[in-house]
Amino acid sequence: MTQAKRSILVTNDDGITAPGIAHLVEVAKQFGNVVVVAPDSPQSGMGHAVTISKPIRLEKVNEFEGVESYQCSGTPADCVKLAVDQVYHHKPDLILSGINHGSNASINVLYSGTMSAAVEGAIEGIPSIGFSLMDYARNANFLPGIPFITSIVASVIENGLTDGTLLNVNIPVGEAHELKGIKICRQAKAKWDENFEARKDPHGRDYYWMVGNFNDYDHGHDTDLWALKNKYVSIVPTQFDMTAHHMIGHLNTWEF
Amino acid sequence: MTQAKRSILVTNDDGITAPGIAHLVEVAKQFGNVVVVAPDSPQSGMGHAVTISKPIRLEKVNEFEGVESYQCSGTPADCVKLAVDQVYHHKPDLILSGINHGSNASINVLYSGTMSAAVEGAIEGIPSIGFSLMDYARNANFLPGIPFITSIVASVIENGLTDGTLLNVNIPVGEAHELKGIKICRQAKAKWDENFEARKDPHGRDYYWMVGNFNDYDHGHDTDLWALKNKYVSIVPTQFDMTAHHMIGHLNTWEF
Repeated sequence: MTQAKRSILVTNDDGITAPGIAHLVEVAKQFGNVVVVAPDSPQSGMGHAVTISKPIRLEKVNEFEGVESYQCSGTPADCVKLAVDQVYHHKPDLILSGINHGSNASINVLYSGTMSAAVEGAIEGIPSIGFSLMDYARNANFLPGIPFITSIVASVIENGLTDGTLLNVNIPVGEAHELKGIKICRQAKAKWDENFEARKDPHGRDYYWMVGNFNDYDHGHDTDLWALKNKYVSIVPTQFDMTAHHMIGHLNTWEF
Repeated sequence: MTQAKRSILVTNDDGITAPGIAHLVEVAKQFGNVVVVAPDSPQSGMGHAVTISKPIRLEKVNEFEGVESYQCSGTPADCVKLAVDQVYHHKPDLILSGINHGSNASINVLYSGTMSAAVEGAIEGIPSIGFSLMDYARNANFLPGIPFITSIVASVIENGLTDGTLLNVNIPVGEAHELKGIKICRQAKAKWDENFEARKDPHGRDYYWMVGNFNDYDHGHDTDLWALKNKYVSIVPTQFDMTAHHMIGHLNTWEF
């Protein structure tokens, strides 16, 4: 397929005005015709939520020069569904989600709106990649990661992705000379250990803020968290088949 | 552990007043001390969303006779996190989520609030099971499925669950004599083919309702959808490691 005809959907979960998506649009423009359909407000932590009990707005905007763009009131997964069904009326050739402001490594793949958009693309059979930078700041420095993102997009276009899989790419914080390269990884065994902060409102009623620490319980050197800690860009090949296939034989020995 | 001391958390995504959770509380009471922490409103389609940018309410209620119960303003995943951190202050021995009004078979595991609560439990290292009945109606008949649910809970208590795994149980609609038994299954390859319904509001602006058909693209006889269609209760052993391990070697051959 010629570059001019390749159709690329760009989306994210931080919202269409986040700096991260502007960087991803610039990368995507080198590879084809870009359309953006992204949330009209931040949707971090939305996981694979979809909007079924209220209507969804989709509005054409002029956010990126020379790029057809829409803001959507729904979740990142909604954005992909609406883009395919109502904007393209067919399947784009590639979906790029991000660049997220903050890590989606390890277990965060489950909570991530950025990754849910990419998962939704993979469910539709479209090669899809989620990109995240390990920096939550709005003014995070995305530039050192751009050559890696460009290279990964080029490789996916060249090689394709196996049906049912997508890529979860995380980029460590660092200057260009500090980033060591790319590692193919597995999802680390890590989790958030929540400690909610309990407060009282002015009317004496309790409420809670979710706080918490992210702890790595994995000692492997083949994980995304290890790679990122050692200044490698991590790529985790990711699938949406959640079956624990190794358990099927064992469960068949149970007597119910 | 004696029955009296076993601590069982019950939650769901249809909200604490849904009939399905009342049935699950009754089953759970046979196996230990039950605490309910469930959403104060329906949370279907919330996937693995968590509430990080607004405070969460948790209020003690008298919804189930003799059972300590709380309604929570957050998502199903929030309910599990809050229950562990603020209600129990330790980990319960078992988490039961549901009984969901509607299917969570196949790809619906990703969109399901019911399953996200069970996944969150498994992340915490707690044996967790999600239960769903293939009937969206509020007045659905949960009774034919109860003996199967009871048997599955007893089996999990007896055998435990391997670290990193949980069970996704779906129950077909049918009278007791029509249900044929239990099948251990894999997640079917199926998906929602969305067709959004476009409408105009009274001010002339477009909005969209998500509609769509669920299509089974899997011809296997070992899937949850096959089992359910043939009137078996399906159990899919489920994991939250989304790594496509079979792709790691292949991706290592790519040149970036």
